[in-house]
Amino acid sequence: MRFFFRTFLLLIAGNLALQAQVKRPFALVIHGGAGAITKENTAPEKERGARAGLEKALQAGYAVLEKGGTSLDAVEAAVRVLEDDPNFNAGVGAVLTAEGTAELDSAIMDGRTLGAGSVAGLRHIKNPVSLARRVMEKSPHVMLIGEGAEAFAKTQGLTFVENATFITPARLEAWKRAKGKAQPGNPKGTVGAVALDQAGNLAAATSTGGMMMKKWGRVGDAPIIGIGTYADNATCAVSCTGWGEFFIRTVVAHDIAAQMAYAGTPLTKAAIQTLDKVKALGGDGGLIALDAKGTITMPFNTSGMFRAFKKSDGTQGVSLFRND
Amino acid sequence: MRFFFRTFLLLIAGNLALQAQVKRPFALVIHGGAGAITKENTAPEKERGARAGLEKALQAGYAVLEKGGTSLDAVEAAVRVLEDDPNFNAGVGAVLTAEGTAELDSAIMDGRTLGAGSVAGLRHIKNPVSLARRVMEKSPHVMLIGEGAEAFAKTQGLTFVENATFITPARLEAWKRAKGKAQPGNPKGTVGAVALDQAGNLAAATSTGGMMMKKWGRVGDAPIIGIGTYADNATCAVSCTGWGEFFIRTVVAHDIAAQMAYAGTPLTKAAIQTLDKVKALGGDGGLIALDAKGTITMPFNTSGMFRAFKKSDGTQGVSLFRND
Repeated sequence: MRFFFRTFLLLIAGNLALQAQVKRPFALVIHGGAGAITKENTAPEKERGARAGLEKALQAGYAVLEKGGTSLDAVEAAVRVLEDDPNFNAGVGAVLTAEGTAELDSAIMDGRTLGAGSVAGLRHIKNPVSLARRVMEKSPHVMLIGEGAEAFAKTQGLTFVENATFITPARLEAWKRAKGKAQPGNPKGTVGAVALDQAGNLAAATSTGGMMMKKWGRVGDAPIIGIGTYADNATCAVSCTGWGEFFIRTVVAHDIAAQMAYAGTPLTKAAIQTLDKVKALGGDGGLIALDAKGTITMPFNTSGMFRAFKKSDGTQGVSLFRND
Repeated sequence: MRFFFRTFLLLIAGNLALQAQVKRPFALVIHGGAGAITKENTAPEKERGARAGLEKALQAGYAVLEKGGTSLDAVEAAVRVLEDDPNFNAGVGAVLTAEGTAELDSAIMDGRTLGAGSVAGLRHIKNPVSLARRVMEKSPHVMLIGEGAEAFAKTQGLTFVENATFITPARLEAWKRAKGKAQPGNPKGTVGAVALDQAGNLAAATSTGGMMMKKWGRVGDAPIIGIGTYADNATCAVSCTGWGEFFIRTVVAHDIAAQMAYAGTPLTKAAIQTLDKVKALGGDGGLIALDAKGTITMPFNTSGMFRAFKKSDGTQGVSLFRND
């Protein structure tokens, strides 16, 4: 009996030592938008810019995780890099509204607490994702819109810039070409990140300039908690990109989480099934998702999606097109 | 053989005749807000006003269903009555923002098509629910906010009113009392409706003035598709009322639908389980929900919720308090 007891203790001690050595897995996945993106229709300098931008954002977010930082800090860091990069439809480089201005939306969610922050219709906040985080952490609210959201930003000392700061020559050219055409432009762009940190916590963030030539204060799925952005340690973290209207009607991010929670569907299958619902309604797009075990999925039903991932097991990748 | 064939035909004919006689069930459920409402703290004239208002809205919506109209028309009709009634926190009678203005949000969803419309931050639209419906039916978008949403309303010939039209003496008094206090007022109010029509289609609509003393362009759960408002013929129609921030983080309406879709949970149990999650986060409120068989549930974890229902089987009721 005493022998068994001693063996039992040794087994427990060994197990604890092993756990201390083998760090929990951590991972970062980012996207820079899904759309009609092919090798053929992407200029070489645009391709280089997108790859370099994804790489830089990936490193910024992964560095946080590697140092033992939180998944929240990681997704915010990655998304800030993408917002500042003119190659993506968020922050600098946002597509323009019918009026020729940039109107920015963003959201962030903490899978540990289900805390969430969301902002829409911003015109002067340099990094919308950081304002979304302040809404989550420093206000009693989840969603703030328009001038009200910017008034809150003032109380938080966020960096304000002129709206023109967001407008790149390429977006202005595209706006001039599209002007006068009846339909709003094909939605493309949006950036986002999902992360799992060493403490096992998930987080998600999304940021976008929305749909080109949008008008009437249109808001898409990106800043909507449970739709374009969602994180719950019990299931997954999700950030979407695509035709927002169809993503809203499908409640995409929460629909993936709910399949995992209620039907026991694995992440990858759940994500594909939800994206198929978007397609059945007539929409398209893609998403990145990550579960608490470090499973990654990056499905899209457009011709391409800017995407990248890096995991603590050493695997990583940056891809733009379908077979890439 | 011929005998069997004839019997078979007779059975089919009989069955068809029976189906024509026995109409499919239809039902309407409405709410006028959950909150710290008790018999004791409700003035008799307020109680009479709330009961009469619910009764009137119920009749308006039920009349549509009875004539064979759509559930969409029924929920819009019921919510318009509640918006026009100063007893409820939507349209006329909306609670006031920190600045002393009314800022209105609304959403509507069609369970047959998963079509949806949402508006937030309105200041001059007499019936926000009707604008939400126009967004769904006459725009390529789902969600429009602020001045942009009102610009769209102009193109649709919606009725505009002065912001002062929404402000009742009672709300102004409450605002004056609350002014200068640090915290935004306890959320209370919001109106909504869910309906099942004779064709078997579900619909949901919600409308609100939001949280008293709200600032910074705060948006709650009411206008968010999948959260305060949701309808899908395959599961249920839901309209929520309560502390919006906690409802958003729980993705309430879609969480109920998802339990039904993925775990086979019956409506009533699913609704209670989701509301328990809201409570676990620290929030409170209530909701009304209806499935395609005509099952009704109206749970709340506040002391009271203004609510009423009427079904084609002849049952109906109007209740304000817990044991009522």
